[in-house]
Amino acid sequence: MSSVVSLPIHRKDFSGGKPVNDFVAVEEPLEILVGGRNLAITMRTPGNDAELAAGFLFTEGLLKTQDQIRSIAESGNQVNVEPADPDDAAFRRQDRRFAMTSACGVCGKSSINSLYASGCEAIPAGTFVIEDNVLRGLPDVLRSAQTVFHQTGGIHAAGLFDAEGNLEIVREDVGRHNAVDKLIGALFLRNAAPPGYPAQNRMFRARGRASFELVQKSAMAGIPFMAAVGAPSSLAIETAQRFGMTLAGFLRHDRFNIYCNPDRISC
Amino acid sequence: MSSVVSLPIHRKDFSGGKPVNDFVAVEEPLEILVGGRNLAITMRTPGNDAELAAGFLFTEGLLKTQDQIRSIAESGNQVNVEPADPDDAAFRRQDRRFAMTSACGVCGKSSINSLYASGCEAIPAGTFVIEDNVLRGLPDVLRSAQTVFHQTGGIHAAGLFDAEGNLEIVREDVGRHNAVDKLIGALFLRNAAPPGYPAQNRMFRARGRASFELVQKSAMAGIPFMAAVGAPSSLAIETAQRFGMTLAGFLRHDRFNIYCNPDRISC
Repeated sequence: MSSVVSLPIHRKDFSGGKPVNDFVAVEEPLEILVGGRNLAITMRTPGNDAELAAGFLFTEGLLKTQDQIRSIAESGNQVNVEPADPDDAAFRRQDRRFAMTSACGVCGKSSINSLYASGCEAIPAGTFVIEDNVLRGLPDVLRSAQTVFHQTGGIHAAGLFDAEGNLEIVREDVGRHNAVDKLIGALFLRNAAPPGYPAQNRMFRARGRASFELVQKSAMAGIPFMAAVGAPSSLAIETAQRFGMTLAGFLRHDRFNIYCNPDRISC
Repeated sequence: MSSVVSLPIHRKDFSGGKPVNDFVAVEEPLEILVGGRNLAITMRTPGNDAELAAGFLFTEGLLKTQDQIRSIAESGNQVNVEPADPDDAAFRRQDRRFAMTSACGVCGKSSINSLYASGCEAIPAGTFVIEDNVLRGLPDVLRSAQTVFHQTGGIHAAGLFDAEGNLEIVREDVGRHNAVDKLIGALFLRNAAPPGYPAQNRMFRARGRASFELVQKSAMAGIPFMAAVGAPSSLAIETAQRFGMTLAGFLRHDRFNIYCNPDRISC
């Protein structure tokens, strides 16, 4: 399925109005199934649906390792994750929690403690140090790598960088949480997320605000540094502090704010 | 509870770094209960929680009229909506749908048809006409009315305007959907939403993107015009078309785009 469509619109400015064709980001529901059973529905931009499903299951604490998955099958607006062991209790144990919560990850994690309960661990100090000027250059790197954004201006992107500022993975979606799930799902499917912890040498940067859900997902993936273009919320900062993550906000060419654990930035 | 907190942060720029105090938007979970039973949990900025609960129940199609509510009680991070009739089937009938979907409204409305099933009706043509230059002035009006945003830069705002560009209601939240639920909840609690339809003489404007969920909520409230600062998604446009709404995006001082039903804008 396409992630962008071209539509006729009216563009108005001081010189008047004119009909033009414009590109718009596609938003469609995706049903995530486990062993053929509905687990969640999320509105997403089609593309990387297997990564989205894997990232969602992993960042929500259901999946711990890639070998718990036998296969992931995409079909239109459905993606089915087949467990390696049909009796794997991990997938069923959480039914009650999901029933109350959401497909999009913002909701239902009613406290930081539920993150500990999901097996999330604090990230050790000393992992990942990035230079100040490299950090300030990341927005340009990410922007130049984005595909759908350039066409529509209406999509979120999440990028995974190493300490030299090299972009390793970029994922886009109309939903900020989905872009991050796709990115972390890609890591997970490469066996590059905890418990192996190679993600500890990486950071990620997101367009928009830093909400609790984004910090939560980073912490679950063991990513020690998160930088956002927008502002963080109070709970995002508190969560980053608890799990030993560095959180930066309002990242621009010429300035940024650091909300906790500034030792991962060198001048 | 406060909607903003002051925290010590580090601010970095070319002249170096310095510790300062900065304001951050509060994000906390809110549990929405109906008759004492958990219905949903959402992450929100504290404030107007009763409106948020009412707006959520109304825009999700559970509540039709204000007199279905006996009382709404706020207590910390909980808000309980007590039905006027404890046996009101409307509140229970939807349990299954909510169990699959979300507290935040983005998810689970797997098609536009489910909106029809929720009783949403197309908005008649001819309702609400706004002048081009009044429309372009709305961002300034909304910005000057925002409270938390000015302090934190990290919060979404939704404003309800009349055709002369007068701001009638403004609501803010870290979650875009919550700001809209609070705004529509305020209308609903004034008996100013369908089936009475006085909302038809109003429009609303949101910061950020125009997603399906925002258009869905506007349509449920009978609001004929929605303008966003950001881009709409494909499904947002399709939904606005189906329900006879005017949808504008990229609203600036000097230009904007119209995605459907341009007749509500006069030059």
